[in-house]
Amino acid sequence: MTADERFAQAAASLGHRFDGEIKIGGNYTPVVRDGQQLFVSGQIPRVGDEVLYVGAVGAEVDLDSARKAAAICAMRALAFVQRAAGSLEAVRCVPRITVYVRCAPDFTQHSEVADGASDLIAQVLGAAGAHARTSVGVLQLPKGAAVELDLIARVD
Amino acid sequence: MTADERFAQAAASLGHRFDGEIKIGGNYTPVVRDGQQLFVSGQIPRVGDEVLYVGAVGAEVDLDSARKAAAICAMRALAFVQRAAGSLEAVRCVPRITVYVRCAPDFTQHSEVADGASDLIAQVLGAAGAHARTSVGVLQLPKGAAVELDLIARVD
Amino acid sequence: MTADERFAQAAASLGHRFDGEIKIGGNYTPVVRDGQQLFVSGQIPRVGDEVLYVGAVGAEVDLDSARKAAAICAMRALAFVQRAAGSLEAVRCVPRITVYVRCAPDFTQHSEVADGASDLIAQVLGAAGAHARTSVGVLQLPKGAAVELDLIARVD
Repeated sequence: MTADERFAQAAASLGHRFDGEIKIGGNYTPVVRDGQQLFVSGQIPRVGDEVLYVGAVGAEVDLDSARKAAAICAMRALAFVQRAAGSLEAVRCVPRITVYVRCAPDFTQHSEVADGASDLIAQVLGAAGAHARTSVGVLQLPKGAAVELDLIARVD
Repeated sequence: MTADERFAQAAASLGHRFDGEIKIGGNYTPVVRDGQQLFVSGQIPRVGDEVLYVGAVGAEVDLDSARKAAAICAMRALAFVQRAAGSLEAVRCVPRITVYVRCAPDFTQHSEVADGASDLIAQVLGAAGAHARTSVGVLQLPKGAAVELDLIARVD
Repeated sequence: MTADERFAQAAASLGHRFDGEIKIGGNYTPVVRDGQQLFVSGQIPRVGDEVLYVGAVGAEVDLDSARKAAAICAMRALAFVQRAAGSLEAVRCVPRITVYVRCAPDFTQHSEVADGASDLIAQVLGAAGAHARTSVGVLQLPKGAAVELDLIARVD
């Protein structure tokens, strides 16, 4: 299977589609190419018009839901990479993902949330999905989202 | 008009000057060049010795003020790019800006705040200001600033 | 002295070792090489199995401890750079470090905390440690750590 086929499979498994318009919320560009690096803007777990996971992780949103939210953010980011590069087969590595978790004051499992994105990237990209990662716990996120993720992808 | 002329015009319109010394607050470098990428340090809305916008957005600082704060952060960042590259005409794109908004717990309009920076960058750089963006809501910022912004610029 | 010797000296001075296994907490890679850029994952002040500085800076953790925490994060990051590049002598510059400080709501000395990392990098790398920096105050961090730091290093 190609990375694009695994992407389609992951979308089906999540029960969401990422092949239509992907809305963003401001005066910026979803993905910018600088040489062989693609910089993808911060993604929240929005599908169509709806932000699927809203609230603080560890309070209104549980760990399992937060991991799904992180996976959806990663799917959106990969969808933008796929469109910019023509195919996810072009990805050589993912130099960094940053995962911002909106959390309750005493919640400390940000890495476990971020694994929801990392596992998805590994599943879709295989060895080409190797990535450095930073995950932190923030007070709030745009539209009250539970998770936000951005990334840099290196492509051929 | 050149990008440098538009920069001067934007400074006049904001009522501030960015052509003197720009203070930073620690043992680091305002801008580092790595090949054709300029990495600019996190900027707060400081002009001269004064941080102009202090407080949590959505509480002590309203949305319109926060947008102005974001624009001033962006002007400072562009001033460093201009000095490092010789001219803002050298900018090819802005691969990423990250906007950290110090906010009240229930404030969710981080994208609207960040548009204050994005609109300024578009006004000064035109198409060369195309940028990916991440905006998040944080608990605090250096010197109690309402907004902090960093960016990467690609130059010739 | 070489940068590697200064690194060993700094480790001895901190009273910790960074030459064994360095544990990470998730499904990601500690350092990813993209051309001449090394992206290092977010580091918390963990030595062996123990996170040495836990709590909010300005509440449970004082400024001096937070600076030590930042220095340990930086040592961990440099250890990964050293392993990936073969030697710290290969470093040309450090385009960016980002320092996330878990803090009390009214704590605003994030730059002073980050100087703990910046001073360490200057001590070990000298002029090659020139770096842009962003420091922010966040609500929480993985495992309750007081500080988290990531960086990009440019190597030969």
